[in-house]
Amino acid sequence: MKLSDRVQAMQNSPIRKFNPMAAEAKATGTKIYHLNIGQPDIVTPSVFMESIKGFDQKVLAYAESPGLPELQDSIIDYFKGFDMNLDRKDILITSGGSEALTLVFLSLINPGDEVIVAEPYYTNYLTFIQAADGVIKPVTTYAEDGYKYAYMDRLEAAVTEKTKMISIVNPGNPTGCILSREDMRVICDFAKKHDLWILADEVYREFAYDGREMTSFGQYDDVADRVIIIDSISKRFSACGARIGCLISKNADLMANVMKIAMGRLCCPTLEMVGATALYKLDDSFFNEVRAEYEKRRNVSYEALKKIPGVVCEQPGGAFYITCKMPVENTEDLLVFLLKEFRENNETVMYAPAEGFYATPGLGKNELRIAYILNADDMARGIELLGKGIEAYKAAGHK
Amino acid sequence: MKLSDRVQAMQNSPIRKFNPMAAEAKATGTKIYHLNIGQPDIVTPSVFMESIKGFDQKVLAYAESPGLPELQDSIIDYFKGFDMNLDRKDILITSGGSEALTLVFLSLINPGDEVIVAEPYYTNYLTFIQAADGVIKPVTTYAEDGYKYAYMDRLEAAVTEKTKMISIVNPGNPTGCILSREDMRVICDFAKKHDLWILADEVYREFAYDGREMTSFGQYDDVADRVIIIDSISKRFSACGARIGCLISKNADLMANVMKIAMGRLCCPTLEMVGATALYKLDDSFFNEVRAEYEKRRNVSYEALKKIPGVVCEQPGGAFYITCKMPVENTEDLLVFLLKEFRENNETVMYAPAEGFYATPGLGKNELRIAYILNADDMARGIELLGKGIEAYKAAGHK
Repeated sequence: MKLSDRVQAMQNSPIRKFNPMAAEAKATGTKIYHLNIGQPDIVTPSVFMESIKGFDQKVLAYAESPGLPELQDSIIDYFKGFDMNLDRKDILITSGGSEALTLVFLSLINPGDEVIVAEPYYTNYLTFIQAADGVIKPVTTYAEDGYKYAYMDRLEAAVTEKTKMISIVNPGNPTGCILSREDMRVICDFAKKHDLWILADEVYREFAYDGREMTSFGQYDDVADRVIIIDSISKRFSACGARIGCLISKNADLMANVMKIAMGRLCCPTLEMVGATALYKLDDSFFNEVRAEYEKRRNVSYEALKKIPGVVCEQPGGAFYITCKMPVENTEDLLVFLLKEFRENNETVMYAPAEGFYATPGLGKNELRIAYILNADDMARGIELLGKGIEAYKAAGHK
Repeated sequence: MKLSDRVQAMQNSPIRKFNPMAAEAKATGTKIYHLNIGQPDIVTPSVFMESIKGFDQKVLAYAESPGLPELQDSIIDYFKGFDMNLDRKDILITSGGSEALTLVFLSLINPGDEVIVAEPYYTNYLTFIQAADGVIKPVTTYAEDGYKYAYMDRLEAAVTEKTKMISIVNPGNPTGCILSREDMRVICDFAKKHDLWILADEVYREFAYDGREMTSFGQYDDVADRVIIIDSISKRFSACGARIGCLISKNADLMANVMKIAMGRLCCPTLEMVGATALYKLDDSFFNEVRAEYEKRRNVSYEALKKIPGVVCEQPGGAFYITCKMPVENTEDLLVFLLKEFRENNETVMYAPAEGFYATPGLGKNELRIAYILNADDMARGIELLGKGIEAYKAAGHK
């Protein structure tokens, strides 16, 4: 009656493990600025619920395993804006980007196979890769360098005979690092040279600031057979609770094999797919407004962070996260102090300590991630609290 | 750029692989009686859509990873009707019973571990177990014997040092075989003797006919730490397209570890959980009516099958399937004949050939499964067509 080795090797979410401590603080009336989670406060576009309310079939039957054809068509139209010509057979609708990632790793990874991932990484990647008995091979990145990873020599150094793929989140979570066209070319050439799959998680695609171009690895014809794109409505349309994403690939052999697993789980929820169909049809005006709001929040957050003495980070170009190096030895200890001891006007702040985002032991202890998902005033106040908390932490004798 | 060994070893759905041939027949105007899939025609209770339409939060945010607390509470209340006292921590809401099964196998199975399963089995179990690199160890059952499997000697014969668990669907898919209290006792004693987990897929729990008691393995206190129950709203409430199920266990260590994977995939869709909360609150009157309808369909279907010379089956006691041995050598060949050549009044019939439901090579070739999910008249006509199709098949020289 033992559990599997793989599940026992998994960690508990490093983002959620401080929640009980936060709940205790709230129970005593403390207000917490939650900069620790990527849950946007943007209103979900009303077409989502309106289209669901219009659903009038008497029997809520199984949908097709690949997804509702009208949702696939809506996604095809959306990607035409990126000069990509997709076909229904290239698209599998999934339960969020999360299920798409699980399906990809189960379909590509044999036990012990290695996946090249820039660290710090979105921590759930470790879970998805461990579920397939795979191993993360990290390419370490640095706050001083804006957490960039598209350097051929560093990527080359990570390759072994067990390397199966390179896995990218662009724009990046947790760093906000965004790839330039030149960077993407480096990744493509690297993958071709070593015959690797490219897993491109692009759920933050439209969150590109300062006039940066929005891109996709699906725009590179010379790697079309090795690229797998993950998309999702969660962040883009502030519909995290819908759990609708998709897996896109032009590789017919991959799609046929992924479908074997997808047929086993039957289908995604029909109503959510109906709502997602409407969301993918929204025009640029919706997202231009959202992007401007996030860019403002990023600017305010970055300015506030730079006011804290000793903070190291570059201004990130995309997504809605900033990861930075802090003037303390251990950001988990600092967070415990903020939640248990520090208060100003009965307020404190919460972030995600970065140690759990690294595969290399010992790294990330003095780093943290904030998500700029609150309005600009709240972001400024939250980061002000962080700075004052650090002062208090040091005054109390901590390093 | 190879695919994983596990995905390449998986089969395509043996139920769905004849769909293209059926589509061709329909394109020529042929009516097909679809007895091949478990998609009920019962109207989904209106409280499902009504409660979803009442959802009025502006931001469709991530739900809690274990599921909406109000849905957990609704499930707790439902199981009180089975004299079971569950706690929220015993319940993880999942994307259908399918995700629950995937999570269980990933959490229990090491590569090469064996799962005892009665054959014929619900074919997607093979996919779920292969996804975890596990192996099905079949206990063969027989049409002549009503596909019963709760025999201690036959179960004992399947045990090896790699046996990790016994996996049961009760009432059964594809056989409709239902366990008596004595049968359940045999399973419990067997699991205790060999220190095995009991995975009890009880999504057809209420589909018990002829006054049979509705049961759960959760009612056996002496195996409470080793029982894992799979539940789902799909069949019970004719809400297959909602994709809401759950995993239930009193084993805290298992639940804590399963939660590691569940947190990785974040949560289930909020709206569907809101709808499911209302469904679990429906009283017995809803289901008494549904059960009476299915019992009528079963009776009509069984009578019609017995009129076909050479058919071997016992009247099944639960679920909505009948598996039987047919007077032909190969039911896949017969199905091709029915779809391509046989017509009566421009009508034909479709069923699921059973070979894909067996792990033992060579078994099941002369068996098939029908689902009695159409109204009684259509079931009678569909099976009449099957009988006439067999006559024509033999008259054409097939065996």
